[in-house]
Amino acid sequence: MTPDATTGTGHDDVGRARRTSTDLLRRVEDTLRTLLAGERDAWAEVHEQAVVPIEALSELIASGGKRIRPAFCVTGYLAAGGDPDDPGIVAAGAALEMLHLSALVHDDVLDDSSRRRGVPTVHTQHAALHDSRGWQGESRRYGEGVAILVGDLALVYSEELMAKAPASVLPEWNRLRSEVMIGQYLDVHAATEFSVDPRSSRLIARIKSGRYTIHRPLVVGANAAGRGDLAPAFEEYGEAVGEAFQLRDDLLDAFGDSADTGKPTGLDFTQHKMTLLLGWAMQRDEHIHRLITQPGHTPDELRRRLVDTGVPADVEQHIADLVERGCKAIADAPVDQVWREELVDMAVRVAYRNA
Amino acid sequence: MTPDATTGTGHDDVGRARRTSTDLLRRVEDTLRTLLAGERDAWAEVHEQAVVPIEALSELIASGGKRIRPAFCVTGYLAAGGDPDDPGIVAAGAALEMLHLSALVHDDVLDDSSRRRGVPTVHTQHAALHDSRGWQGESRRYGEGVAILVGDLALVYSEELMAKAPASVLPEWNRLRSEVMIGQYLDVHAATEFSVDPRSSRLIARIKSGRYTIHRPLVVGANAAGRGDLAPAFEEYGEAVGEAFQLRDDLLDAFGDSADTGKPTGLDFTQHKMTLLLGWAMQRDEHIHRLITQPGHTPDELRRRLVDTGVPADVEQHIADLVERGCKAIADAPVDQVWREELVDMAVRVAYRNA
Repeated sequence: MTPDATTGTGHDDVGRARRTSTDLLRRVEDTLRTLLAGERDAWAEVHEQAVVPIEALSELIASGGKRIRPAFCVTGYLAAGGDPDDPGIVAAGAALEMLHLSALVHDDVLDDSSRRRGVPTVHTQHAALHDSRGWQGESRRYGEGVAILVGDLALVYSEELMAKAPASVLPEWNRLRSEVMIGQYLDVHAATEFSVDPRSSRLIARIKSGRYTIHRPLVVGANAAGRGDLAPAFEEYGEAVGEAFQLRDDLLDAFGDSADTGKPTGLDFTQHKMTLLLGWAMQRDEHIHRLITQPGHTPDELRRRLVDTGVPADVEQHIADLVERGCKAIADAPVDQVWREELVDMAVRVAYRNA
Repeated sequence: MTPDATTGTGHDDVGRARRTSTDLLRRVEDTLRTLLAGERDAWAEVHEQAVVPIEALSELIASGGKRIRPAFCVTGYLAAGGDPDDPGIVAAGAALEMLHLSALVHDDVLDDSSRRRGVPTVHTQHAALHDSRGWQGESRRYGEGVAILVGDLALVYSEELMAKAPASVLPEWNRLRSEVMIGQYLDVHAATEFSVDPRSSRLIARIKSGRYTIHRPLVVGANAAGRGDLAPAFEEYGEAVGEAFQLRDDLLDAFGDSADTGKPTGLDFTQHKMTLLLGWAMQRDEHIHRLITQPGHTPDELRRRLVDTGVPADVEQHIADLVERGCKAIADAPVDQVWREELVDMAVRVAYRNA
C-alpha cells in the first residue's frame, strides 16, 4: 500500500473500493436481466404474444444507459459501511434502474420522442409495426398504449425488486417515486404556458434531477446500511451535483450530438420545455421565446441566438460552482476518505459527461 | 340467535359478519381518502400546481365505483379467520383499489374513453382544459400525458399502501400486478387483428377479470390471515365467478345503459375488443365482423344482429352455470358457513349487476 501523503488514502484502497462498487453494479445488471429472462420464460408458456412487453424492457436494458442511479445507490451504501455481500443492496440498485426504465418509456410518449439509447422508442416501434401490418384502429394510439403498459410493467417490477431491499429504505423510496411523478407533471404543465418562471423551473430541476438521480439514490443506499445520519450531507451533495447534471442535460439537448446521446437533440425546444438554460436565456433576450414557439426558425438560428446571450458560458461556470459546492458538502461527511474521493470523481463525471 | 335448521347459521351471525365486512370497507375508504388528503396538503406547500394529479385521483374516488376488489380481499381475509382489528388488511384492500384507479386512468387512454363513473375521464378533462386555454403544444398529447402520470402516481400509492400489509401477501400481489399489465397488452394487441381466437379471448378474460378482480384479491386476503391453504378453493371460485363478471361486462357494454354504468356503451365495438361475447357471435354470423370494422353501421343494427345469433341468451345461461360452479367450489372450503353464504351472495351480485 502506498499511502498518499495529503489524504492518507492509498491507491490500493481506491482500487479496492472501485472494484467492490463495480462488482455490485455488475450484480445489479445480472439481477435486472435475470428477472426479465425469468418472466419472459414463464409467460412464453402462457401465450406467445405475452413476451412482447417484457422483451421491450430487455431491449432497452441491452441498448445501453449510464446506470447513474444504481451507481449512486451502491456508492451511498458502501460509503455508509454497508456489507457488500448483502443481496438487499443489489435489489435496491436494480429497483432504481427499473423505475428509471418505466420513467423513460412513459417520458418518451409525453415528449413524443423518436429515439432512446440509439434505437426507436417503444411507442414509435409499436406504432410503426401497427402501420406496417395494416392493423385495426389507430397506429398512434396502439403504439402509445403499448408504451403505457410496458412502462407500467417496469414500475411493477421495480417494486418487486425493492421489496427485497431492507425495509429501512421504504420511506425514501416512497418519497422518490411520488415526487418524480409529480415533478414530471409540473414539467409537462410548465411547457404548456412556456413563460419564464424561475421558481418553477428550479423546483422541477431539483425534483426531476437532483433528488431523483442523485440525492435520494444515495440516501436509499445509506439507509439500506442503517446510516440515516448521512442524509443531510448526501442531500446537500445531491442537490448541487444534481443541478449540475440537469444543466449539462440542458446543454447537451441544445448543443450536443445525438450520436453521443442516443436521442434527438433540440427536444426541449420542440416540446417547449422551460429548462433553466432557456429560462435564463429568455430573460436576457425576449426574441428567443418567439423563435421557439413560432414555426419557421432553424435550430442553428436558435443556437446562435442562445450563444449570443452569453448564457451557455455562464451555465458552464455555474456547473463548475455546483460541482465545487457538492464536493464541499461531502468533504466533512462522516464516511471513509476513499468514498469521499469517489463521490468527488462521480460529481465530475456526471457534470462533464457528453451523453 | 335463531339458528337456521339446514345450515346451522343464525341470522345474527350473518348480520355480524356483514357488519364486520362493511366496517372494514369503510376503513379502506377512509385510508384511501386520508392518504390522498395528506399528500395533497404536503404538496400544496411546495407548489400550487402540484396538487392537480392528486386531486384527479380524489375526484375519481369521490365519483363512485363498486370497490369490488377490496370487498373480495376483505371477505377472503375474514373467511380465513383474520383479525378484523389488524390494520394490515385495510391497507391491502386500499392498495387493490388504488391499483385499480391506476388501471382505469391508463385504460381510458388506451380505449380513448370519454367518461368514467359518470364524469369525463382524466385525459379528456385535461385535453379540454388545454384546448380552452389555448396552451402551447398538442391538446391530445397533454391530456394523455397527464393521465399517464396520474395513473403512475396511483400505482406508486398502491405500493405504499400494500407495503403496510403482512409480507405474506407479496407473492400474490406481484403475480396480480404483472399479470394484469400483460393481460392488458394481450387485450390491446388482440383488438388490432380482431380475428376470432377463442383461446386468446378466454385467456384475456381470465387474466383481466377472474384473477385480477376476484381470485387474487381473495387469495391476498387469505394470505394476509396466514391461510395459504384456501388458495385452491378461492382460485376455482374466482375463475368461475370472474368469468361470469366479465361476461356481464360484455353484455353491459353491448346492451347496458350508460346512465347506469357511468361510461359509454359500445366501447368494445369501437375499440374492436375481441370479447367472449363478440367472439362467439362472430363464429355464428360472419357478417358481424364487417359491421364492426367498417364504418356506416348503427349500434342498433349491430345489437339486433347480435341478438339474432342467440349468443346473448346463451351467455346468460353460461353466466348462471358459472355462478353455480363458483358456489360449488366454495361449498366444501374449510371456512365458516357464514362466509360461504356471503361468497355465494357476492357471486350473484357481481354476475347480475347493472353497472
